[in-house]
Amino acid sequence: MANNTHEQDGLDQVRGRIDAIDQELLDLISERARCAQRVAQIKTEVDGRAVQFYRPEREVSILRRVKGANPGPLDGEEVARLFREIMSACLALERPLQAAFLGPEGTFTQAAAIKHFGHSVVTRAMATIDEIFREVEAGSCDFGVVPVENSTEGVVSHTLDLFMASPLAITGEVTLRIHHHLMSAETELGAIRTVYSHQQSLAQCREWLDRYLPHAERVAVGSNADAARTAAKEPGAAAVAGYQAAEIYDLEVLAERIEDEPGNTTRFLVIGKQDAPRSGEDKTSLLLACRNKAGGLHALLMPLAAHGISMTRIESRPSRRGIWDYVFFVDIIGHRDDLPVAAALEHLEREAQLFKVLGSYPVAVL
Amino acid sequence: MANNTHEQDGLDQVRGRIDAIDQELLDLISERARCAQRVAQIKTEVDGRAVQFYRPEREVSILRRVKGANPGPLDGEEVARLFREIMSACLALERPLQAAFLGPEGTFTQAAAIKHFGHSVVTRAMATIDEIFREVEAGSCDFGVVPVENSTEGVVSHTLDLFMASPLAITGEVTLRIHHHLMSAETELGAIRTVYSHQQSLAQCREWLDRYLPHAERVAVGSNADAARTAAKEPGAAAVAGYQAAEIYDLEVLAERIEDEPGNTTRFLVIGKQDAPRSGEDKTSLLLACRNKAGGLHALLMPLAAHGISMTRIESRPSRRGIWDYVFFVDIIGHRDDLPVAAALEHLEREAQLFKVLGSYPVAVL
Repeated sequence: MANNTHEQDGLDQVRGRIDAIDQELLDLISERARCAQRVAQIKTEVDGRAVQFYRPEREVSILRRVKGANPGPLDGEEVARLFREIMSACLALERPLQAAFLGPEGTFTQAAAIKHFGHSVVTRAMATIDEIFREVEAGSCDFGVVPVENSTEGVVSHTLDLFMASPLAITGEVTLRIHHHLMSAETELGAIRTVYSHQQSLAQCREWLDRYLPHAERVAVGSNADAARTAAKEPGAAAVAGYQAAEIYDLEVLAERIEDEPGNTTRFLVIGKQDAPRSGEDKTSLLLACRNKAGGLHALLMPLAAHGISMTRIESRPSRRGIWDYVFFVDIIGHRDDLPVAAALEHLEREAQLFKVLGSYPVAVL
Repeated sequence: MANNTHEQDGLDQVRGRIDAIDQELLDLISERARCAQRVAQIKTEVDGRAVQFYRPEREVSILRRVKGANPGPLDGEEVARLFREIMSACLALERPLQAAFLGPEGTFTQAAAIKHFGHSVVTRAMATIDEIFREVEAGSCDFGVVPVENSTEGVVSHTLDLFMASPLAITGEVTLRIHHHLMSAETELGAIRTVYSHQQSLAQCREWLDRYLPHAERVAVGSNADAARTAAKEPGAAAVAGYQAAEIYDLEVLAERIEDEPGNTTRFLVIGKQDAPRSGEDKTSLLLACRNKAGGLHALLMPLAAHGISMTRIESRPSRRGIWDYVFFVDIIGHRDDLPVAAALEHLEREAQLFKVLGSYPVAVL
């Protein structure tokens, strides 16, 4: 009992310190908000009304510095997330950012928008990716968030096509972890003879399917939602999809998180009227075209190699426009204002039949 | 230009101050996390391994104090939300809280769990409300979050029934804003002859429907998802539901946010092994029963009136158990440890044929 009283004193003391810290935090967060207001005021005086207060390169610099200086015990991701929210709240004081996303509410694209801008962003659901581009072009939304890679919704290539005709630039990237589940109207794994899903999802769960459903046929369909719909009707069928699909089509989840890579991520791009200034750790996305795929590609990429620029992604698409046979979407490491990148781009522009910088933007921090 | 340079100096100065503030914030948040670890360590020494580090009454006290002391310019809600996230991160250092919710991922119930516990909580999707109760009773999850009021998913009464047989207590409440939209396969409002939805949703949009669709018949169905499914098949039909339903059933949203009360909220309860200590601003939920509804109710509520206790909600349900004709779920203002409440409860217990305190818990802050 004496011991408990002693411990109680210890608890009271630590809790007293927490209360004092909270007061200091409140004061500092409030002062930070006032500073953000002051920044907005100065910028408005200089640039007039149309000024954009959001500076992606400064935000990521702050997040990177905080992660780097973090003494623990919280981990760097967690601390960066807290600062993302503090910055989001301060920025929203002037005028909340509006971000268009591919609806409906609750999609991965909305989650990506919130992860990128923090919870003080106003997210606006659009029915199509075209609409997202239009809203941002018209200035009704400050930014748009579009899926671009590894998505299971069958919309990715469409995003890339839209960039060809759009004046918009890429101002950021977001990555999200995605999980896949096996679901069916059957209640036993042993009853599954066919597994439906989007091709990408099937590929992402290959090892699990090889191991637990080696004899089941895999059938690629247009989307994971389509797969779930089929699984609901067909005896012996299962689908690989998200929880939502299981609920909608009243399927039983037979196995959770069956993706081979636990870090399976989907990438999204943030689009806006202009790209981002240098942050020190950037990517640049390019749109290139040549007439002949086989021979042309080598020539096209030569300037990058010559200037020691690394590519993180290349994707070829048959052109819809008929002038070129193929267009390439290429992501490289570095900002277009970095000297070696600038030199490589100048070289590329001379060589390529179509050359467009879609934007330079900070590598995702969170 | 000279002026711009002057302004640039001003900007640099404010940004320098922001950077210094961020460093201080980082240090304070880290120290707060260390304090939380110290609290956990002391508690574990005293109480052994099974100790619960989450103290709902202390969390809400901190949030209320922060809101009260907030000097601006951020509004109180925003500041409380930031502190919720900081506390959530600190608490998760020991062991992340696990909260069971009514799945699938992306439901309102999951949103409620995250709103209540912050983003560092681990949310676990359950297929049914029964399962949520079971997981918490078994100790596999620390807490559960269940819908209880004004829900359009047809599950609310089931939640109340489960409390009758469960040893679990209510440890908190959460409220969420909910929006309704009118959707149809038709593309013109003029073509709508029937509007389907859950009865509660129809009621919540009555004024809008009276005004814009005065001649359309309103038909109550089991859930908003059912309504959307019907609207997809039937010419001239529309549904009142959330965005998700429009997407799933490929309906056009003809009008957004048609609920009469812009502040339309749904309430959720947090359940756990024990209820919450006093926070100074609490509610208590009771389960009462009597044999005869009409005469019994007056007698049942008399002790509350006699002790000056306010009710915020009363709901009668026919009893499934056959011993009583009716059971009442009653929410009152105050904690069961508050003197007038304690006196009223003692009185009630003598009068009622069934008397059960489901829990005392802090009034929702956010």
